[in-house]
Amino acid sequence: MGINQKMYELGNKRSIIREIFEYSKKRGAEIGAENVYDFSLGNPSVPAPKEVNETIVKLLAEKNSVLLHGYTSAQGDAGVRKTIADKINRDFNVGISPDLIYMTCGAAASLSISLKALIAEEGEEVIVFAPFFTEYRVFIENAGGKVVVSTPMEKTFQVDVADFASKITPNTKAVIMNSPNNPSGVVYSEETVKAVCDILKAKSKEFGHPVYLIADEPYRELVYAGVSVPYLMNYYDNTLVCYSYSKSLSLPGERIGYIAICPKMQDALPVYLAVCGAGRSLGYVCAPSLMQQVISLCLDAQVNVAAYKENRDLLYDNLSAYGYECVKPDGAFYLFVKSPVKGDAFAFYEKAKAHEILVVPCDDFGVTGYVRIAYCTAKEKVLGALPAFKNLAKELGL
Amino acid sequence: MGINQKMYELGNKRSIIREIFEYSKKRGAEIGAENVYDFSLGNPSVPAPKEVNETIVKLLAEKNSVLLHGYTSAQGDAGVRKTIADKINRDFNVGISPDLIYMTCGAAASLSISLKALIAEEGEEVIVFAPFFTEYRVFIENAGGKVVVSTPMEKTFQVDVADFASKITPNTKAVIMNSPNNPSGVVYSEETVKAVCDILKAKSKEFGHPVYLIADEPYRELVYAGVSVPYLMNYYDNTLVCYSYSKSLSLPGERIGYIAICPKMQDALPVYLAVCGAGRSLGYVCAPSLMQQVISLCLDAQVNVAAYKENRDLLYDNLSAYGYECVKPDGAFYLFVKSPVKGDAFAFYEKAKAHEILVVPCDDFGVTGYVRIAYCTAKEKVLGALPAFKNLAKELGL
Repeated sequence: MGINQKMYELGNKRSIIREIFEYSKKRGAEIGAENVYDFSLGNPSVPAPKEVNETIVKLLAEKNSVLLHGYTSAQGDAGVRKTIADKINRDFNVGISPDLIYMTCGAAASLSISLKALIAEEGEEVIVFAPFFTEYRVFIENAGGKVVVSTPMEKTFQVDVADFASKITPNTKAVIMNSPNNPSGVVYSEETVKAVCDILKAKSKEFGHPVYLIADEPYRELVYAGVSVPYLMNYYDNTLVCYSYSKSLSLPGERIGYIAICPKMQDALPVYLAVCGAGRSLGYVCAPSLMQQVISLCLDAQVNVAAYKENRDLLYDNLSAYGYECVKPDGAFYLFVKSPVKGDAFAFYEKAKAHEILVVPCDDFGVTGYVRIAYCTAKEKVLGALPAFKNLAKELGL
Repeated sequence: MGINQKMYELGNKRSIIREIFEYSKKRGAEIGAENVYDFSLGNPSVPAPKEVNETIVKLLAEKNSVLLHGYTSAQGDAGVRKTIADKINRDFNVGISPDLIYMTCGAAASLSISLKALIAEEGEEVIVFAPFFTEYRVFIENAGGKVVVSTPMEKTFQVDVADFASKITPNTKAVIMNSPNNPSGVVYSEETVKAVCDILKAKSKEFGHPVYLIADEPYRELVYAGVSVPYLMNYYDNTLVCYSYSKSLSLPGERIGYIAICPKMQDALPVYLAVCGAGRSLGYVCAPSLMQQVISLCLDAQVNVAAYKENRDLLYDNLSAYGYECVKPDGAFYLFVKSPVKGDAFAFYEKAKAHEILVVPCDDFGVTGYVRIAYCTAKEKVLGALPAFKNLAKELGL
């Protein structure tokens, strides 16, 4: 009778990102951190808007400590949920009630709880669109589900609608759509969204039960040049939105987000109650109470998205000019680059490393032969890295 | 193909505490909140020590926002873990390393993660000592385990060692010990702890595998009149301590605590890695980052325990004098009272309610015929309730 071997392996197996992180620290100590061009981590590099810290100080000064730091109800403070519902209705006009909002400890919690609420039987399938955030696999499997990968269109990395249609079966419980996408930076177009939702509607009807759509959108606000991200509830009723303030307010460590259930979902209330049950079952008592108040008072605050856009333009324009094949990112803070070394992501990673550039090979994200460049970093780092990328391009004969 | 029915039921089934909470609000609106003697909720009533808010303001002023609100490593900030390890070693001399501390989103997360890390096969058993916090059942079952209840000694509510010995089998994976206890307020004596640990040692040897001891101790600091709570790592090597700052710093809504693995545990490192894996699997990315820093700078701060003691003395002394049979609480903020109405907890609850006194019938806590009085409330509320308790005693012929 041993411990849980699967959990041991999950804890013991370092992700490639973690490996690179450790290497980066070591290498920085050897040659100076300023000489390592580390683009491996998706940790926001712009500070929280000043309203965040100002609001914290104000709340501490004005609010009763027992209330401010006390338990909220499990689904979140009622007033906070009301401000969030109001904002969703203002922005997307979906008529959601605060009683269909469930506050969470961030996007990972939102996804874990939603999947646990929906998946009823071992082996029910959840479709993810490649490339996809690797932790989806962990959350889906924890809920007893099976990951089914839908491969994307070449070059654009939009959904391959025919492939998606072929992957959906009577055993499909849910589909996760992440836009803007980690790791590609792609924003799924309205055309893509409509095509996906048409298939979901037809298949739900055919199977006689809903196939749920989970919108994972922590990067919603990080979009460039007027691109807008379709709000999935407006295209498909059986939608759950998993949101987090990690990127929109640069608060990734504070673990604050929510799940919103589409009011037109055919079984909205039972799904909401199952979400409450799943949160309880996974040990989430309530989302952090001070941060609930803080975000509700900072819903319209914005981080400096222009800083990310500047990095995107510098990297996309220059790397393309050097001969790299890049997917143009309309959002998030990732650039997805095809390996020029025989299409081998790991080989490209190694070559780049020799030039002190650290990128993430993405085979685990469901697409082979690409690396991710996380440009949530200081502009100086990007500027410093450009000559190294240029030299590497020359060396690779691009 | 429906949603997860078990999660739906967990979300839909209101706990009795929740029912009472709703009734209390309604009744307060009718007759004035000051006239309802609500002792149902275990929500700390004394504010966080002033150091907490001062530390938050100082951190916001001095620390870089990206670092302060950013992701920490999954197991928690290394510096924070060091200060906690140092404090544990100072207080209990166990020689723990920071690398055996895992920061969590509070005690419920600590327990959920520990159970998930340990339980390998569906149906492995976890022994809980009655009376026990009802959510243990939810956490154990989520991890695939089966709850086995050990009944306590009468009157003292210490562990019935013979009963415990009879409940432990080769299928026992872990034992949870909660001291000071919710809902009885009892602190398990050193004699009890030694007896339990002797059995655990003998049985682990007999079975050829460790039976783990999980110490759930969010109430450790809330003890009265010089009583001390034995630190279980000093009595048994295969111990995991689940701690939370919810009560010791009055921060229940902030969700901050830790798991500490005994350095003498025979497989300490694999268990720690399984804890890391389980945290990842349940969707916990890291414990809230600002609060990690805050508690590490407030480890020696104390809430006003004297206020709880005053309430305890008022209630225990007077209710005993009125003729109620009370278990003397040495810790936490609960008084456990035997129902004088044919030993029927719910009947007593109803009779008390007619006097505007709200207590929690505890049959779900694994002991029938008792109610819990949560005295984490203003002294005025206790003083106001005493005449009502006296009238009720007269009515019941005590």
